[in-house]
Amino acid sequence: MTTTDDSSTASAGPAGSEAQRRIEERLTEEVVASFAGAGDARLRAVLESLTRHLHAFIRDVRLTEDEWKQAIDFLTATGHITDDKRQEFILLSDVLGASMQTIAVNNEAYRDATEATVFGPFFVSGAPLVGNGGDIAGGAPGQPCWVEGTVRDTDGNPVPGARIEVWEADEDGFYDVQYDDDRVAGRGHLFSESDGSFRFWCLTPTPYPIPHDGPVGRLLEAAGRSPVRAAHLHFMVTAEGLRTLVTHIFVDGDPQLEIGDSVFGVKDSLVKRFEEQQADTPPPDGRDLGGRPWTAARFDIVLAPDGTGA
Amino acid sequence: MTTTDDSSTASAGPAGSEAQRRIEERLTEEVVASFAGAGDARLRAVLESLTRHLHAFIRDVRLTEDEWKQAIDFLTATGHITDDKRQEFILLSDVLGASMQTIAVNNEAYRDATEATVFGPFFVSGAPLVGNGGDIAGGAPGQPCWVEGTVRDTDGNPVPGARIEVWEADEDGFYDVQYDDDRVAGRGHLFSESDGSFRFWCLTPTPYPIPHDGPVGRLLEAAGRSPVRAAHLHFMVTAEGLRTLVTHIFVDGDPQLEIGDSVFGVKDSLVKRFEEQQADTPPPDGRDLGGRPWTAARFDIVLAPDGTGA
Repeated sequence: MTTTDDSSTASAGPAGSEAQRRIEERLTEEVVASFAGAGDARLRAVLESLTRHLHAFIRDVRLTEDEWKQAIDFLTATGHITDDKRQEFILLSDVLGASMQTIAVNNEAYRDATEATVFGPFFVSGAPLVGNGGDIAGGAPGQPCWVEGTVRDTDGNPVPGARIEVWEADEDGFYDVQYDDDRVAGRGHLFSESDGSFRFWCLTPTPYPIPHDGPVGRLLEAAGRSPVRAAHLHFMVTAEGLRTLVTHIFVDGDPQLEIGDSVFGVKDSLVKRFEEQQADTPPPDGRDLGGRPWTAARFDIVLAPDGTGA
Repeated sequence: MTTTDDSSTASAGPAGSEAQRRIEERLTEEVVASFAGAGDARLRAVLESLTRHLHAFIRDVRLTEDEWKQAIDFLTATGHITDDKRQEFILLSDVLGASMQTIAVNNEAYRDATEATVFGPFFVSGAPLVGNGGDIAGGAPGQPCWVEGTVRDTDGNPVPGARIEVWEADEDGFYDVQYDDDRVAGRGHLFSESDGSFRFWCLTPTPYPIPHDGPVGRLLEAAGRSPVRAAHLHFMVTAEGLRTLVTHIFVDGDPQLEIGDSVFGVKDSLVKRFEEQQADTPPPDGRDLGGRPWTAARFDIVLAPDGTGA
């Protein structure tokens, strides 16, 4: 990266840095103006803003032609590794925090409503109904974990009948859909009771890496960043008249919280204590855990009114 | 796109728009901070700036989750149509003006040096030596065109021995490499003479569309934009101690100049008169053109010193 130094500016006559600045700005305005004929006003606004920010990036870093070519090659490799089973562009959006920023602008802070976080690529609709007190593990390996809590609105009223979808990776770091068989495990749904309460068994969440054998993994390595996601349990909570909540809870004490979640999904309010229980501590529902230790966590959910913040 | 309206802000208590702004800014700073461990300082600076501009775009337009998904799908389709023969990401960069902005920051204005423009995907190294007065058409169909000019430095001194690479589409809008045979046509090189002068035959340039049957073509259509490039003749001029110039000349009077060049390559200084000549007007070198009309253009090239402006 070389910029015009003082001596060459001095000798540059009518050209030089001010003329250069005008050339660059004029080009941006020319591209922005080219979208004036877009049939859809929203598309036009998005493309205009995209153009301004993309050009500002190129100008701010004085992107070299070689770097531009590296960017083209990177996007090409990202496209070529992407298929029905792997979405490297979503990974790219995730590791640049673009996914979380999109979540943030679509789930604006509203009173004490529970914060949202990334949806991730592993949700499957039609997961089994396990009911309150049921087990979503479905035989997946891992330590048993009891989760209970309530669903309320921002006025503190219980929300009965809220649909609570839960999903998670097993202790090996894989979701059921990442296996080649057709197993359904580590996912299920239930509904809150008349007092807003819910409870279920699952697995104590463990950290796992996002797929990092592709272009995004190479980017993380060059940036000195960990591909590992902090341990988490996914929730999607829907109830009539209330804003749908897509979120996780994270495990207090997980060392990855200090290292940094690779997709920036962590919010302090979502870090929960998963209390370790001795093997001889009886679970709340008296279930026989075969002499294994277990954990217990609490998650009280607050849903914003529908139509807020997005 | 919905933003928090006045009434909901008023009832938002400790949250609301200021809290929201802080959440969004904090997320951006968290992602920026994640690149602190990059081994290469330049990579770190580029990723930090990319993150800030990408997040600012998402925040400015309040990108919806559905639009985010459309963007993922668009990039995926762009990746899947890209192969050894087609580079849809370069097209995307071109139609967003990102290619031209990169050219602009790497070829800063310097005195009266000839302006640069896009390189394009159709240059081939090792094109034939045609020499001064030779014909680069190589049998490609089109109207004969005589081009002459000089190569000088910014102090006005002639530059002898400058290597001048010239390439162009035929009158059907295709470069030789776009045909399935192995033809070499519409390209060649020559060297400036001791007085800096050069001259050659080529084809009068004609407008042609960039490939527009893919995602980028659909984007242009939705934006109400023409995929057509203004008629142009490519040049790359190299000489020792001088900045390499990659540019085009455009055809004064080409209606596409008013409609807009699809990749924003046009600069006023590069629009040249291609004077139409009657069939009975003898060409400067007495060549027998078989009774066809022809055109004549002049391009005086000024090269900046090496090391300026990039």
